[in-house]
Amino acid sequence: MAKRRAAGSCCCCPMKEDNARFCLLAGLILLYLLCGAAIFSALEHPFELRARLLWKQQLDNFTRRYRVNLGALHTLLRQYEEANGAGIRVDALRPRWDFSGAFYFVGTVVSTIGFGMTTPATIAGKIFLIFYGLIGCAATILFFNLFLERIITMLAYIMRWCHERRLRCAGVGVVSSREESSGEEDSLEGWKPSVYYVMLILGIASVVIACSASTLYSSMENWSYVDSLYFCFVAFSTIGFGDLVSSQRQQYESQEAYRFGNCLFILMGVCCIYSLFNVISIVIKQTLNWILGKLVCSGKPKRIKRNAVQPISSHHRYTDGSVETVCDSETDAGALAEVQVGRRLSGEMISVNEFMVSNKVSLALLQKQLSETAHQGPRQSYSHQNGFSGGVGALGIMNNRLQETSVDR
Amino acid sequence: MAKRRAAGSCCCCPMKEDNARFCLLAGLILLYLLCGAAIFSALEHPFELRARLLWKQQLDNFTRRYRVNLGALHTLLRQYEEANGAGIRVDALRPRWDFSGAFYFVGTVVSTIGFGMTTPATIAGKIFLIFYGLIGCAATILFFNLFLERIITMLAYIMRWCHERRLRCAGVGVVSSREESSGEEDSLEGWKPSVYYVMLILGIASVVIACSASTLYSSMENWSYVDSLYFCFVAFSTIGFGDLVSSQRQQYESQEAYRFGNCLFILMGVCCIYSLFNVISIVIKQTLNWILGKLVCSGKPKRIKRNAVQPISSHHRYTDGSVETVCDSETDAGALAEVQVGRRLSGEMISVNEFMVSNKVSLALLQKQLSETAHQGPRQSYSHQNGFSGGVGALGIMNNRLQETSVDR
Repeated sequence: MAKRRAAGSCCCCPMKEDNARFCLLAGLILLYLLCGAAIFSALEHPFELRARLLWKQQLDNFTRRYRVNLGALHTLLRQYEEANGAGIRVDALRPRWDFSGAFYFVGTVVSTIGFGMTTPATIAGKIFLIFYGLIGCAATILFFNLFLERIITMLAYIMRWCHERRLRCAGVGVVSSREESSGEEDSLEGWKPSVYYVMLILGIASVVIACSASTLYSSMENWSYVDSLYFCFVAFSTIGFGDLVSSQRQQYESQEAYRFGNCLFILMGVCCIYSLFNVISIVIKQTLNWILGKLVCSGKPKRIKRNAVQPISSHHRYTDGSVETVCDSETDAGALAEVQVGRRLSGEMISVNEFMVSNKVSLALLQKQLSETAHQGPRQSYSHQNGFSGGVGALGIMNNRLQETSVDR
Repeated sequence: MAKRRAAGSCCCCPMKEDNARFCLLAGLILLYLLCGAAIFSALEHPFELRARLLWKQQLDNFTRRYRVNLGALHTLLRQYEEANGAGIRVDALRPRWDFSGAFYFVGTVVSTIGFGMTTPATIAGKIFLIFYGLIGCAATILFFNLFLERIITMLAYIMRWCHERRLRCAGVGVVSSREESSGEEDSLEGWKPSVYYVMLILGIASVVIACSASTLYSSMENWSYVDSLYFCFVAFSTIGFGDLVSSQRQQYESQEAYRFGNCLFILMGVCCIYSLFNVISIVIKQTLNWILGKLVCSGKPKRIKRNAVQPISSHHRYTDGSVETVCDSETDAGALAEVQVGRRLSGEMISVNEFMVSNKVSLALLQKQLSETAHQGPRQSYSHQNGFSGGVGALGIMNNRLQETSVDR
C-alpha cells in the first residue's frame, strides 16, 4: 500500500481510478465487438448463404451424374476432412513434418500466429506442444518487448537528432548558446519524441513492409494484391487464421530464397506491428483518461477550465501538492488528465512559436519549466507517484522514452 | 543520448549490453526453434506418412467401387475445399455469420487467437478486417496489460498481507514495534513479492482454469481430455490453430449457457496465460542477464568473486558510482548481474533468518539497506539509470511491484 500512502490526501482514488479505467476499457471493447459482429455479419452472411447453395448444387450434380450413394460420398468427405487435418490436399502441398515444415510450424507456435496449416496429431505431439509453447511464447514475448525497446530507442535517438537540428536551424541555438552547453543539454534532455510521430513512423514502416511482402506473395502465390495484404495483416498481427498461408505449395521458383524471404518478412512484420499495436494502445489509454476526466468532471460542476498551455505560475500549483484546492481530488485528477491529454493531443510538447511569444525567461529555462508543468507536475498527482505511471504493460518500456509517457527524467 | 551520459564513466556499454542481450535471446530462440523442429518432426512425421497412405487407400476404394472418374472426384474435392473455407462440413456446423457466430469471430480477431473457423471471404470483409483488427488488437493488448496490472496489484496485496502476518507470528513485530509504525512501514514498503511466487500462483490459476475448461469441453464436444487440454492451451495462448474449435456444432444441450461459459473460460484463460507468459519472460530475462554475466566474466580472469549476500559495506561501493575500481566496466556489469541474479534465484529477497543472525542494526534498517544493496545499488549501475531497468515490455508494469523488478521505491 505504498501506493495508497504516496497518493497523499487522495487516499483511495488511485485504485478506484485504475479500476474505472479497466472497466471503461472492457465496456468499450464489448461495444466494439458488438458493432464489429453486426458489420461482419452484414458483409459476410450473404456470401455464406451463396456458398452453401453452390456446394449443395455441386454435390447434387456429382451424385446424379455418377450415381453415387450420398451416404458413401459423405463418408469419403469425412475421411477427406480428417486427411485435411494431416495436411493432405488434392493439389499436393509441401510435406508438413519434414524439418523445414516443422520449423515453419514451431515458428507459428512461438510467435502465437498459429496458422494451423500444420498441427500435431499424435498425443505425444500435443502434450509436448503445451510445454514447448509455454517457454517458447514467453521467450518470444520477451523478444518482441526487447525489439520494441530497441526500436523506440533508435527512433528517439533519430528524432532527437532531427529536433536538435531544427532548433539549431531556427536560430534558437544562438539564444541558448549563452548558457553554455549545460542549459541546452538540460532542455534537450527533457525533450521526448511525440507518441504520435512514433506511431506515424511505425505505421509507415508497417505499410512499407506489408506492401513489399504483398508484392512478393501476390507474384509467388498467385493471390490477388488485396488477398496478399489481408494475409500480411493476419500474419503480422499474429491472428493467423490459416485460410491463406504462404509457402505451402510443393514447388516454387527459387524455393529456398522464397522460404527465407517469407520468414524474414513475417519476422519483420510481426515485430513492427507488435510495436505499432503497443504505441496505439498508449494513445487508447490516453483517450480513456480523457474520457474518464470528462465523465468525472461533467458530474461535478465546480470544475475550473484551464488553457492547454498553462502560465508558469501553475507550475507551483501542480508541484507543491496542494492540488485539491482547485477542486476535490477526483475532479482534479480528471481535470489534470484532461490538461495532460489536451497537451498530448496537440502532438508536440510545446511548439517553438509559443516559446518565442513568451520570452520572459530564457528559452531553455522556460522549456524546462513548462515540460515540468506538463509532465512531472500533473503526472505526479495523477499517477500517484507509484513509479510507473506510463508503464502500463508493454508500454512500460516506452515509459520515459516518449514525451507522453515521461515521468522521471 | 541522455542514457549515454547518465551511464557516466561506462559510456557505451549500456547500448552494447542491451544489444548483446537482444542478440543472445534471438540466438537462443533460433536454437530453441531448431530443436523444436527436430523433435516435432520426429514425433509427427510417421503419422503424416500413415495418414497420406490411408487417404490414398480410401480414395482408391471409392473410385474402384463406384467407378468414378478420378479427375471428376478431384474436382469435387477441390470444390469441397472451397466450401470448407466458407464453413461448410458434411455434419452441419453452426452458421458462421449469424450475429453470435460473427461475435465469436471478432472475439478471435481482437484477442489474436484467430482460430480460422470463420474467415471473411469478401473483399470488403477482408479490407474492413485490417482496419477493425488494427484498433481492436491494440485495445485488447491494453486490456491484457491493464488486467496484468490489476492481477499483480492484487497478488502483491495478498502476499504482502501474508508476509506481514508471518512476520508478526514469528515475533518480529515485537522487535520493530519499538520504532513505532514508521520503521515497520518502511521495511514493509521495501518488501516486494517474489516473481517466483507470482509465477507459481499464476501457473496454478492457469492449470485450474484449463482443467475446469477441459472438463467442460470434453463432456460437451466429446473430445478426449488430452485433446481438451491441448485446445485450452492453444486457445489461451492465442496461438489458435483451429484444428479443434469449441462451440462449433449446430446444437448443444443448454446451448446458450455453454456458449457463455465458453467465452468466459477463453477470456479468463487468455488473461491468465498472458500474465503467466509475461512473468515467465521476466525470469527468462534474468537468466539472460546471468548468462551474459557469466560470458563476460569468463572472458576476463580478473573478476572478483563475491558472496551472494554482500556485507553492508558493499552498499557504498555500489551506490557511490566508483564501480569500475573493482574491475573494468563490462566485467563489473556482468559481475553485478550475477550477484543480482544470484540473489534473485534464491527466490526471496533476504530470508528472515539471515536478518536474525546479523542483528547489529535494527531489523527494519538492515532490511532497508540490504534491499538497497541488492536492488537499487547494482540496478543503478547495471541498468545505467535510464529509469526503466526492469521495465522491459509488458514487464514494465510489474516494475516496482515485484521484488526482482524493483528499482525506485
